[in-house]
Amino acid sequence: MKLIEENPLYTIVNPRSIALFGASNSFSMGTVIYKCIKHLEFPGPLYVIHPREKHVQGVNAFPSIRDCPEIPELAVIVLPAQVVGETLEACGQKGVKRAIVISGGFKESGDNGEELEREMIATARKYGIRVLGPNCIGVTNPHRQLNTTTFPYTAPSGYIGMVSQSGSFIVQMFTYLSKMGLGFSTAFSVGNEADLDCVDCLEYLALCPHTKVIALYLEGIRRGREFLDAARAITPHKPVVALYVGGSEGGKRAGRSHTGALAGPDYLYEGAFRQSGIIRARSVTELFDFCYILGNTPLPKGRRVVIQTDSGGPGTAAADACSRAGLALTSLSSETVEKLTEYVPATASIRNPVDITFYKNPEYYTEGIPRTLLSDENTDMLLVYILMPFEIISLFMENMGMSRDQAIRESLTMLDQQSASLAQLAQELGKPVVGYTFRDVSEEVIQGLMHQGVTVFHGSERAARALDALSRYASIREKMQSVSVEGVTTG
Amino acid sequence: MKLIEENPLYTIVNPRSIALFGASNSFSMGTVIYKCIKHLEFPGPLYVIHPREKHVQGVNAFPSIRDCPEIPELAVIVLPAQVVGETLEACGQKGVKRAIVISGGFKESGDNGEELEREMIATARKYGIRVLGPNCIGVTNPHRQLNTTTFPYTAPSGYIGMVSQSGSFIVQMFTYLSKMGLGFSTAFSVGNEADLDCVDCLEYLALCPHTKVIALYLEGIRRGREFLDAARAITPHKPVVALYVGGSEGGKRAGRSHTGALAGPDYLYEGAFRQSGIIRARSVTELFDFCYILGNTPLPKGRRVVIQTDSGGPGTAAADACSRAGLALTSLSSETVEKLTEYVPATASIRNPVDITFYKNPEYYTEGIPRTLLSDENTDMLLVYILMPFEIISLFMENMGMSRDQAIRESLTMLDQQSASLAQLAQELGKPVVGYTFRDVSEEVIQGLMHQGVTVFHGSERAARALDALSRYASIREKMQSVSVEGVTTG
Repeated sequence: MKLIEENPLYTIVNPRSIALFGASNSFSMGTVIYKCIKHLEFPGPLYVIHPREKHVQGVNAFPSIRDCPEIPELAVIVLPAQVVGETLEACGQKGVKRAIVISGGFKESGDNGEELEREMIATARKYGIRVLGPNCIGVTNPHRQLNTTTFPYTAPSGYIGMVSQSGSFIVQMFTYLSKMGLGFSTAFSVGNEADLDCVDCLEYLALCPHTKVIALYLEGIRRGREFLDAARAITPHKPVVALYVGGSEGGKRAGRSHTGALAGPDYLYEGAFRQSGIIRARSVTELFDFCYILGNTPLPKGRRVVIQTDSGGPGTAAADACSRAGLALTSLSSETVEKLTEYVPATASIRNPVDITFYKNPEYYTEGIPRTLLSDENTDMLLVYILMPFEIISLFMENMGMSRDQAIRESLTMLDQQSASLAQLAQELGKPVVGYTFRDVSEEVIQGLMHQGVTVFHGSERAARALDALSRYASIREKMQSVSVEGVTTG
Repeated sequence: MKLIEENPLYTIVNPRSIALFGASNSFSMGTVIYKCIKHLEFPGPLYVIHPREKHVQGVNAFPSIRDCPEIPELAVIVLPAQVVGETLEACGQKGVKRAIVISGGFKESGDNGEELEREMIATARKYGIRVLGPNCIGVTNPHRQLNTTTFPYTAPSGYIGMVSQSGSFIVQMFTYLSKMGLGFSTAFSVGNEADLDCVDCLEYLALCPHTKVIALYLEGIRRGREFLDAARAITPHKPVVALYVGGSEGGKRAGRSHTGALAGPDYLYEGAFRQSGIIRARSVTELFDFCYILGNTPLPKGRRVVIQTDSGGPGTAAADACSRAGLALTSLSSETVEKLTEYVPATASIRNPVDITFYKNPEYYTEGIPRTLLSDENTDMLLVYILMPFEIISLFMENMGMSRDQAIRESLTMLDQQSASLAQLAQELGKPVVGYTFRDVSEEVIQGLMHQGVTVFHGSERAARALDALSRYASIREKMQSVSVEGVTTG
């Protein structure tokens, strides 16, 4: 096993010091990036290089990289394409070994740009500088308080390692992920991939201890063979989820004009993903839903789901969604049915979906019932409908004589205890427990449940597709691990 | 054309007075419904009937319906199944003509329940009482401040008319819809459909002036012929979107145990929907996304989309999503390309997607550019990427010396003006303008845009599928209107 420190990207996302080219006292992309680095409170020295200004954004600037008091570990370059080559030359002379070139105007913009890109890379090679970009939006590694992108990083430090051929895509996920309680472990925008590329990023993230699952946003892969080899080595140990947008007519046309990536027909990518154990997502929503569940729940032993609900419609919708997603609705054993009679009212449907219709005791819904269902040997996964009728509970508490504020507090406390109980159970029994709700997941009561560690999706369709992805990964992993063991035995 | 007042459901959702059976001083479904009626401040008299308590929830109760000072226009009954028959008998003697029976324990729960349901309906017929339910969750008509369900109605008064075979489904959409800025015009939970059914609801909503689009949540249709005839008559004038969950194995099994509805194979429903001009949704998300766009934008003349973006990745994702949804990406005319050079920087891609890369002037993005694109005769619809980089704008304003509060205020004002400009343009040019964003749609800046009237979706996939539904409806409408004109000519 290689050491992560040996990966050329290590210093790019874990630099001790940074030199930034392109920040100024006016509105520019470089200035935005300066703001974003400061916003996340990067702890190391940040040297702003500016040929004329003595002070930039209120801090001392250095007229050239030569003047820096130390050799910065990373150069971040946000200058016009024409001067990037000479800037790298100066960096090389100083001894800088890693650079992120944010600037556009290279290969993606035509003949002259292609020439500029070749020259720039030649300069980098001369000095042994490894380059991410050009035409990218940088990287973010919240675990090291590093964010060289154009958006303030507002999500928590997370477990999703991201490689994106669209830079803007990454930054626009910051708020989206934070609403789901998720965050990036490290995210790379690879741009034109003139030197370091997707394959290097994959290899880095495979070794990254903060990364539980790898997300790929692809418009077209260049080093196909190496990409597949890398993926095949990773997927038995760490899930990889990919969104490929270059396969359709529209995606191909748009993607080409954007990064100059080589888009291939959809079926080719489909096959490649399948062979290398990559889970394919069909939309941005699926990409992060799949990452969410893969990083947050144990793997199931099979594809058999039990649905638990307190209300018929959502139960039917979930049963329909599970069927469409290709999951099996297990039949409960007679022991389970027998045990359940203790917890559910006589009107309940003790079939699958288990619809309790009303509560004998609200605590049963998050303890006795799911415990019984999960203990059934025919249950691989539990899908629980989450209503959390906060409005009704607090109305009632008010009616019992509490003040409005007190009623709200008390009902939140009650729901919080139920959430803790379900989360505890999920952890204890080691089978996937997933909630689905038609509430907005950003509501306080749902956030509370997610915060306790329960995976919750908006709507049964998203939950069902995520459970399908989880089961697919479980079987991919089983298959690939047995293959690699065989490989060792026979090799 | 019939008058809406003649529809048997009219008084059920527009009653001047209500008698409620089942509210008490303890926790019960009837009490919850009492709370929900009060919560929406129903303006007419609400008579609580209770055989023993003199006061219920702090108001005078009546020992029986006989004691009411007037004939209530609507009875809402939330009592055990065994006493519903005699309650209806008393209502009939008093002269009540409409009832909602919330109570379960009828046909859906087996033999004895079936018998009870028959008797109850016989009593209703004797007195000419029209009944919604049993085993339903009531109705909501926010335009009349009426909500007889088990959840406080918290969404605005809206334009979506809903008919649902799952009651809980409706109430669980209240917060979901309100987050999208949407609301119900009137929503019916039909339960067992012992008397009034989906077909009656369809006919009511067709005439309802507040309803711009009809949403159906179906587990199985009983009066197939009448349903299709009703739908066929409505869809040329008002769009109908249906989610059918009874077609899959899981959905069929779950649905049967829940309402006893007759689920049929999926292909049968597929064909029926197609013939009658109903747009089919495949998930809850699609159901309301389709309703949202159909009620909020004009119909397009064709399926040709132009995508406008300020960032490559989201542009490619949208192009891919549009292709997958079966939409066409139009080629811009040379006049349009010529005109655009005025508004976009030289680095921009003046193809479709139009990726402006950066702003010559931020106002162009919401005025000059979309105006030019919409004026192209090859453009049927415009799909605009919405970033609204509030964080960056306010960081900059702070940097220019503003206080944090002032910077936030100023950037919100600036974005608000841009939103107004895009909304104004959409209205002026009469072609669909739809935004997509990877931000959360509940964020203030996106809510601002939606509030101005622009239709915005989370993610390009949802936007593309909604545009597809919109175009499908446009062509259904064209086809069906020409058929009905022919019908008149030849008939």
